[in-house]
Amino acid sequence: MENEKKIESYVVVHNIAKRHNVGTLARSATAFGVSEMILVGRRDFNAFGSHGSTSHVRFRHFHSLTDAKTFLKERDCDICGVEITENAVAVNEHPFKRSTAFLLGNEGTGLSAKECEICDFFVYIPQYGCGTASLNVTVAASIVLHQFGVWAGFSERTREGNKFIVAERPSKQAKKNYCMETSESIAEERRLKRESNGFFEDTGKEESPSNLLDTLFDD
Amino acid sequence: MENEKKIESYVVVHNIAKRHNVGTLARSATAFGVSEMILVGRRDFNAFGSHGSTSHVRFRHFHSLTDAKTFLKERDCDICGVEITENAVAVNEHPFKRSTAFLLGNEGTGLSAKECEICDFFVYIPQYGCGTASLNVTVAASIVLHQFGVWAGFSERTREGNKFIVAERPSKQAKKNYCMETSESIAEERRLKRESNGFFEDTGKEESPSNLLDTLFDD
Repeated sequence: MENEKKIESYVVVHNIAKRHNVGTLARSATAFGVSEMILVGRRDFNAFGSHGSTSHVRFRHFHSLTDAKTFLKERDCDICGVEITENAVAVNEHPFKRSTAFLLGNEGTGLSAKECEICDFFVYIPQYGCGTASLNVTVAASIVLHQFGVWAGFSERTREGNKFIVAERPSKQAKKNYCMETSESIAEERRLKRESNGFFEDTGKEESPSNLLDTLFDD
Repeated sequence: MENEKKIESYVVVHNIAKRHNVGTLARSATAFGVSEMILVGRRDFNAFGSHGSTSHVRFRHFHSLTDAKTFLKERDCDICGVEITENAVAVNEHPFKRSTAFLLGNEGTGLSAKECEICDFFVYIPQYGCGTASLNVTVAASIVLHQFGVWAGFSERTREGNKFIVAERPSKQAKKNYCMETSESIAEERRLKRESNGFFEDTGKEESPSNLLDTLFDD
């Protein structure tokens, strides 16, 4: 914050089908020094699996990918899609240049065309075995955040015995498991409510059925 | 198999409290080309979260850590504990020399003194943020297996579109979600049954209470 040139990382979550994955993602996000988790679309999540770390991660909410992109570009961030695309670079090659926001694909279908459009580049995680088509979304995100931290040379957290030291729980968020409000997001929500039939919608287009899936607990 | 000098990786699971974690571990293990998952102690597991990949990973069972160590040393494997010990090396520094078996700690308590004894060295995953004392066990294992694959230069699996190609499901294991029998393990099991009060025991010492925990589903 004190130095605008410092390297930061962000995680952008859009269309994650299983909301508890946001909880496990938050645990890895705080471990790897992510500045903010950005929820696009639905703003509620399930903190299960976060081991309390959701209270240490700053969450921000946008109604559309375009709004999220505008915010990130104002912070001079690249947007990196985590997806096995044709021109994706292996994450261990560290194709990073500056602060980066990592956009994660839906557990089942990966990044949509619309999501890919806001990405500056893509990374993927090389696989060597034959038994699975893809990795769990939290596993994939964690490997990418780990490699980004290595590239950025983030300072390591102090350890005590065989654990990293956990900070005091910060002042609580406005509402548990619900992304903090900002005056802009409230205004935007009111606008969308007037214009459409629900605030889960992304810029008024059709709602993804995956937003409605929340019964399976692990992917 | 055809060349005894080829680099291989193994995952050794002992005392994992939550059996479904073996399922999610298996998915990452097959993605990262792990040769075998070695279960020590209890031999049943929960394949939930594996997305079918448990049928692609070879499982092997031993009753004691000592037996597992003997097997691995016959294969010229180092045993690497994944734990934040005093002299653990950051995994991104690739402190590897040859085929390596990764011993994972219990989700809550990490590696026990007895588990540490069979390790040749330790790696840990650097953390940069303040909100969590440790990573989910599958996340930690996946990062380590990813870095080992990078170090070993394993060949990448062919991709098709945005997925890695999954092989045909191999001929099924003897019993679903139950580690395959070998004649030695059957003999050993009979011996232990005669000598002690249950085959979950490890060399007749006290049973870890964590072996009995299986009610929570995610760590």
